[in-house]
Amino acid sequence: MKLNPRLTLSGLVVVALGLAALATRAQEALPSWNDGPAKQAVLDFVTATTTQGGPQFVPPEARIAAFDQDGTLWVEHPMYTQVMYCLERVPDLVKAKPELKNKPPFSTVLELLHGDRAAMEKLNMKDLEIIAAATLTGMSVESFDAEVKKWIAEAKDPRWKRSYTDLTYQPMQELMRYLRTNGYKTYIVTGGGQDFVRMYAEQTYDIPPEQVVGTAASTKYGYDKQGKPFLTKEPKLILNDNNAGKPEGIHLMIGRRPYAAFGNSTGDKQMLEYTKAGDGARLAMIVLHDDAAREYAYGPAEKLPDTKVGTFTQALYDEAKKNGWTVISMKNDWKTIFPFETK
Amino acid sequence: MKLNPRLTLSGLVVVALGLAALATRAQEALPSWNDGPAKQAVLDFVTATTTQGGPQFVPPEARIAAFDQDGTLWVEHPMYTQVMYCLERVPDLVKAKPELKNKPPFSTVLELLHGDRAAMEKLNMKDLEIIAAATLTGMSVESFDAEVKKWIAEAKDPRWKRSYTDLTYQPMQELMRYLRTNGYKTYIVTGGGQDFVRMYAEQTYDIPPEQVVGTAASTKYGYDKQGKPFLTKEPKLILNDNNAGKPEGIHLMIGRRPYAAFGNSTGDKQMLEYTKAGDGARLAMIVLHDDAAREYAYGPAEKLPDTKVGTFTQALYDEAKKNGWTVISMKNDWKTIFPFETK
Repeated sequence: MKLNPRLTLSGLVVVALGLAALATRAQEALPSWNDGPAKQAVLDFVTATTTQGGPQFVPPEARIAAFDQDGTLWVEHPMYTQVMYCLERVPDLVKAKPELKNKPPFSTVLELLHGDRAAMEKLNMKDLEIIAAATLTGMSVESFDAEVKKWIAEAKDPRWKRSYTDLTYQPMQELMRYLRTNGYKTYIVTGGGQDFVRMYAEQTYDIPPEQVVGTAASTKYGYDKQGKPFLTKEPKLILNDNNAGKPEGIHLMIGRRPYAAFGNSTGDKQMLEYTKAGDGARLAMIVLHDDAAREYAYGPAEKLPDTKVGTFTQALYDEAKKNGWTVISMKNDWKTIFPFETK
Repeated sequence: MKLNPRLTLSGLVVVALGLAALATRAQEALPSWNDGPAKQAVLDFVTATTTQGGPQFVPPEARIAAFDQDGTLWVEHPMYTQVMYCLERVPDLVKAKPELKNKPPFSTVLELLHGDRAAMEKLNMKDLEIIAAATLTGMSVESFDAEVKKWIAEAKDPRWKRSYTDLTYQPMQELMRYLRTNGYKTYIVTGGGQDFVRMYAEQTYDIPPEQVVGTAASTKYGYDKQGKPFLTKEPKLILNDNNAGKPEGIHLMIGRRPYAAFGNSTGDKQMLEYTKAGDGARLAMIVLHDDAAREYAYGPAEKLPDTKVGTFTQALYDEAKKNGWTVISMKNDWKTIFPFETK
């Protein structure tokens, strides 16, 4: 650093006090984080990439941070919110198309919704794909958007009896705000449906639709009887935004490599690798659900219970440790889990 | 409007002077535009959508403006810049793969580049697709980016003997800046390749990569011999961002309907329809190339010469007039065409 010759001692004191104030503000920006390596990794990364003239300074326009959603920004157990949406749309679907009522997998979903929890076991991936295609495509973008908004406003999580949008993680909300305050553009990069997540991301996370990258199907342009144009949601996949699809989706939708990425499962592995492979300071963090009391505990990494929803394998844990990703322990790193706890 | 009871006469004078100053600034913001219906349409639209409390006010986060590139923001004749790139890449391609040297369409391109202009007639759409696939895919994203940047820095337009990036339209540059000053997010929505345009859009138009929507092919995630991840450009089309593909691409990449859209050819028809079909004030403008002296003249609308590059049909002209789109006459509405004229 080249010192300004006119910099006086009193000037240096002012600078030092300014830096101390900045450090305090950084601490204050993450009140729900316990002191420890995870919080420190965030503070160090932001300092390194925003210090003008520093060796790892990143110009503001290149400051991109990518967040997985399910299990990283909000609760994903016992089942992804969007799967709940698809299942709970089936009764209306059957009303519109009565011929589906006694036909699996739709009949199985009706049994499940009527309280037969064992029926869930009968649904395989192929069934879920059929249900997804039937409930997420075939309608206009406007109809779909209205249905999702209505459902999100009414639906409740079975354990907390709260809106799904109440079940975001307070420490991650603080982290996103802290990054934005420091010039980062925050993106959601989710395996969930892009159109679905866009319906609540702005209100829930302050993330606008154009900063939501997700699994996407094509739409088809057409005209209604009055000649007014509209888009219909088609059952043709454009982007499967999971695993290798995450860096591919980031290239398609953002066009630059993120400087920071956050995930929680094997579906985020390639996004974290791709982020960390860039030059300069790069932050890769992965949330470990190790708090059965306050949220859920699952892995199977670190001998936590195995799961099919948001799997975090031991191999992924080992890769994190080897490649300098920071594992966030919900139990140890987070003072509070949900925003409603702090109110 | 509820009047503040403490508003005095002198206060009103200050407000009136302020409004007059704003109007002057708006005039000053578009110095390369002649007074007339096109300039007025822009000023009226911006006033309507940014007047707090007005009936057509648009909140800043929803202010999206979409611009076609070729023929709308810069010169597209005699041939689209990206086609020139693909053709001029053929010698290097043939050097790397000598077996292509005597094989059409590559041999035809070599004849063309050696001065046989008649060879261009031998190239059909299928040939151009083969050449595009060979020159735009198969390499890593990093290699492609470096090649495009190098070419853009060196290549010259045949008529003006200037860089292609010098041949942007000064009035459109002013229009984009004016919209951004008023809180609009400006997007390029181009039939050209998304990855190609992203390589110069930031420097040329102040539009970052994430605000370039274009024709896009998929990429494939993989690892090099050292285990470092990288993306390879694949010859599999994801989005053909032309015609109906433009509103479909806008939905995919932006997720909201633009309030303003700008085009110049049949490929922009659906984007302009889709934009104009939204509620409230919407601005749709279409550039007519009617200035053979300062740029080019082509239609075939309004009896201008016909062309296959940036076709503007009479049917499109009639639709514009019928639907309240504003036709921009390069000859009558633009005082200057290129930024270098003003220097």
